[in-house]
Amino acid sequence: MASVKLIGNRPSPFVNRVQIALNLKSVDYDFLEETFGSKSELLLKSNPVHKKIPVLLHNDKPICESLIIVQYIDEVWASGPSILPSDPYDRAIARFWGAYIDDKELLGRHKESKKKLAAVDQFVGMLVLLEEVFVKCSEGKGLFCGDKIGYLDIALGGFLGWLKVAVELYDVKLLDEAKTPGLVGWAERFCSDDAVKDVIPKTEELLEFAKTVPA
Amino acid sequence: MASVKLIGNRPSPFVNRVQIALNLKSVDYDFLEETFGSKSELLLKSNPVHKKIPVLLHNDKPICESLIIVQYIDEVWASGPSILPSDPYDRAIARFWGAYIDDKELLGRHKESKKKLAAVDQFVGMLVLLEEVFVKCSEGKGLFCGDKIGYLDIALGGFLGWLKVAVELYDVKLLDEAKTPGLVGWAERFCSDDAVKDVIPKTEELLEFAKTVPA
Repeated sequence: MASVKLIGNRPSPFVNRVQIALNLKSVDYDFLEETFGSKSELLLKSNPVHKKIPVLLHNDKPICESLIIVQYIDEVWASGPSILPSDPYDRAIARFWGAYIDDKELLGRHKESKKKLAAVDQFVGMLVLLEEVFVKCSEGKGLFCGDKIGYLDIALGGFLGWLKVAVELYDVKLLDEAKTPGLVGWAERFCSDDAVKDVIPKTEELLEFAKTVPA
Repeated sequence: MASVKLIGNRPSPFVNRVQIALNLKSVDYDFLEETFGSKSELLLKSNPVHKKIPVLLHNDKPICESLIIVQYIDEVWASGPSILPSDPYDRAIARFWGAYIDDKELLGRHKESKKKLAAVDQFVGMLVLLEEVFVKCSEGKGLFCGDKIGYLDIALGGFLGWLKVAVELYDVKLLDEAKTPGLVGWAERFCSDDAVKDVIPKTEELLEFAKTVPA
């Protein structure tokens, strides 16, 4: 039987993406938890270029970079529900927005309030643009590419735990009914899916974790 | 008949990637040349997010980001020679290194010699690492994924015209027999392929172009 291991930790949105993809395909795996702030020998050996989680080990062969792993999972466990759209154009669009999301700077813990505001502004700008994408792509079906969780849902959805935490950390509601009404509903649907609900960490857990991350 | 148009310009390595992929698949296309320094209405309309070339228009639908376009071409013209490897693991590895190349800063025209040296160092570091990848992946067959041009050949090969120009602009040989012997041979093989040889601009053309780019 194929051996599947995931090197990661629970608070990482990038790791969460991979967990969701594995759940969608009903793949059993061992979760090899990394301690924040240190890097295991196995991680360094498996991802010598970036030294970052997540790494998927499939029959001991490492695959790195969360969205590349998600595509790999989709291709290897092809008999399960499709993650990438079947149409090449839709696939290109999904990849485009996935890369767009990963190209943005994450909200760090900025000490300076000016930097903090700029980071929040940029993030909200991204969400407003993705609201447009959502309205266009979902065609009223509730998720980015229809009525089933797919690539772009996973790419953005991995961050949903942290979006809620931002309310506490930044005093700002990143998803709100006024600016991003479609995404508010999408977030609820996404997080209540069986493949997702136990993956996205609870706000309290992330707040505890955030305290341990240096600003 | 399907209409294929490419918005780009000849000196862009990213545009060159798409031209090579289209040539490999024997796809006829119209080349809509952008003037450097200005952006056409069609470009702004087709890539409103990044406003960058290349953009592929297939039946008037735009696809952006060079490596996403290359994957699109591979999937749409699936009856031609494959660009991505057929094995999912090899595909993940090719995507990983493609993303790695695109994550690096390009050699700009730095006025400060310190910045120039740092940029050259980083670039040479990348090539030395890719030399290892080449030796491992090519298995003596001459190209990154065997004996036919594939995704990673295209991802790196698009830059080959500019690598030669760097000798003139930076007084440094980026590919040399001592540090990257495998890539030296690879570059020759790649550039002499029918799908490539008329795409990669000549050194003189790029030098002329470089004069028009502000430092």
